[in-house]
Amino acid sequence: MNNNIRWLRDKIKSKNLDGIIISNPLNVKYLTGINAEGMLLITPRENIYLTDGRYVESVNNILTIDDEIIVYDARELIKDDYENIFTFCENVGFEEEYVTYAKYKEFMHKFKINNLEETEGIIEKQRMIKDTEEIDLIKRACEITDDCFQYIKDYIKVGLTEKQIANEIDNFFVENGADGNAFETIVASGINSSKPHAKPTDKKIEAGDPITIDMGCVYQGYCSDMTRTIFAGFIPEEIKPVYELVLRNQKDVINDLHEGINLKNTSKMVESNFKLHGHDLIHALGHGVGMEVHELPFFSTKIDCILKSNMTVAVEPGIYVPGRYGIRIEDTVVVYKGESERLTKSDRDYVIVDEK
Amino acid sequence: MNNNIRWLRDKIKSKNLDGIIISNPLNVKYLTGINAEGMLLITPRENIYLTDGRYVESVNNILTIDDEIIVYDARELIKDDYENIFTFCENVGFEEEYVTYAKYKEFMHKFKINNLEETEGIIEKQRMIKDTEEIDLIKRACEITDDCFQYIKDYIKVGLTEKQIANEIDNFFVENGADGNAFETIVASGINSSKPHAKPTDKKIEAGDPITIDMGCVYQGYCSDMTRTIFAGFIPEEIKPVYELVLRNQKDVINDLHEGINLKNTSKMVESNFKLHGHDLIHALGHGVGMEVHELPFFSTKIDCILKSNMTVAVEPGIYVPGRYGIRIEDTVVVYKGESERLTKSDRDYVIVDEK
Repeated sequence: MNNNIRWLRDKIKSKNLDGIIISNPLNVKYLTGINAEGMLLITPRENIYLTDGRYVESVNNILTIDDEIIVYDARELIKDDYENIFTFCENVGFEEEYVTYAKYKEFMHKFKINNLEETEGIIEKQRMIKDTEEIDLIKRACEITDDCFQYIKDYIKVGLTEKQIANEIDNFFVENGADGNAFETIVASGINSSKPHAKPTDKKIEAGDPITIDMGCVYQGYCSDMTRTIFAGFIPEEIKPVYELVLRNQKDVINDLHEGINLKNTSKMVESNFKLHGHDLIHALGHGVGMEVHELPFFSTKIDCILKSNMTVAVEPGIYVPGRYGIRIEDTVVVYKGESERLTKSDRDYVIVDEK
Repeated sequence: MNNNIRWLRDKIKSKNLDGIIISNPLNVKYLTGINAEGMLLITPRENIYLTDGRYVESVNNILTIDDEIIVYDARELIKDDYENIFTFCENVGFEEEYVTYAKYKEFMHKFKINNLEETEGIIEKQRMIKDTEEIDLIKRACEITDDCFQYIKDYIKVGLTEKQIANEIDNFFVENGADGNAFETIVASGINSSKPHAKPTDKKIEAGDPITIDMGCVYQGYCSDMTRTIFAGFIPEEIKPVYELVLRNQKDVINDLHEGINLKNTSKMVESNFKLHGHDLIHALGHGVGMEVHELPFFSTKIDCILKSNMTVAVEPGIYVPGRYGIRIEDTVVVYKGESERLTKSDRDYVIVDEK
């Protein structure tokens, strides 16, 4: 049995559960390596992967005897088989955030479980702490992202559209070993940069535009996330103090990240500093990065969250001046005992592209 | 108030519901035209669209006063506002197939509803019957698909890979007015055609290959679905009787579709005819096509389902000979009182590409 499943078995025991049904496909992949459609059932006696006929062969190919996972073809199970899986189980956990109400009722009837219990993201919480192998994959995703930024700086010219630039970024990722982009690449220029969640448009880059580029890729299932705001031709004087305010806060936060810090305090610090200079923090300061590009932990000014070693997070302070422009600077970072390390390492100082 | 919402208000009244919460975004779009992230709440007094700040402006832009829909920014609602929405409502419906168990509990607490009732896809069932405007959009999606097939026949040559052909199809869709493909285009050649759900690979087309092309596009939110199995260079003799068996069944089914027919009988007829010739019907004979490329009604050999006028369905009999080849022929069809009409009209007779 692998370490992750062993950990899970201990964990559910400590929560007084006799078994658990894992429905979130990323959690199944995290625990078993299986990348298919199905459910992982942890019972007192066995670890079962329940899937449909299409996947049985490929799933069996990636499992070894050491995994101790039995693969069942759902079409071959009869009513009694379902009822036998969790016999003598009082409490069985399920993932209430991934299971529809209809599915929840189906579990009740099919497995004949006395008490289905919500598990409140136990696996998502464990996934926050990355092991060495996971950190290496995130590092590689970040390297490809840095290389892409290096490339795209030369590519961007006045007259190209946001969509063309976003497309070029996506192509770079695929051609340089990534599985693909980790989210829809954002290229937001001029006034479009004032919206934190802009989509690339057919707007052409003009001289004096700030260009916010928010990009990340997936490498062997793990994500990177980086944003730079760069400038076409020249930097408008009025934007400089805002850029410097965002950059100073981003650097201060990253320098200060380490095991034990409370993300609520970090978020409040940036919020106050922005306020002091007449700006609001309208978007969360950061989030975890891993198998998902947005995952636990989340940076909130309201909820306590203590960082631990080997968490990987993106730090992305931004100032958005409605109808005018926006500045965001973001890096993916790994947290250690007394310090943190930037995994995306692209230059954060002023970048001017297509300078005459 | 538009007809769809008026219909829904009558429908819930007949089910003894005082209100309903619509969470499936396609159902919200069907009822209101709104294409955003949020929930539609039908209460005794009002129609409410609850969304987040990002969407308020764009949603208000597409609504008119006649829609009688109030848009609320969820961030501006306080506890009391939520509790007031469904006050005096005994039974409120919700979409149990789209709502997670966690969300279900959140509804209970936030809205303080006595009884949340499962609504068993009432809107999905209504969506089966298309109005003239919807049929016109599906027709247009089908025309683009026919044009694409015409184009791709000339494009395909021995030596091209499945992925290259699938890519060319996807590009054609976008360049000819479609929103995009309706599903991941299937190009499965030679032995790969023996799997009904094949993904395009780097395999090159070889002379004598059957090539199954399953493709469809989305036009203004409505889908098409069509499959042809064509041949590179020549048609292997052994495949001909199988092709003709599939084609005869596909034609017979479509000629026979009309209001009142039971899809279970239709499916069983094809199953028997295949069996008579030594083959199995291993994949469902067809499915509804509309806002989703797979939607109600489903063709099953086990469940009764009576067709009604203005349903649009795809009919896709296929024979899959494991490890050797497969033949599938599929058209999108609209059902009328005494007849049906093919909306994808591409040639179903033998097509040989790259013939020397």
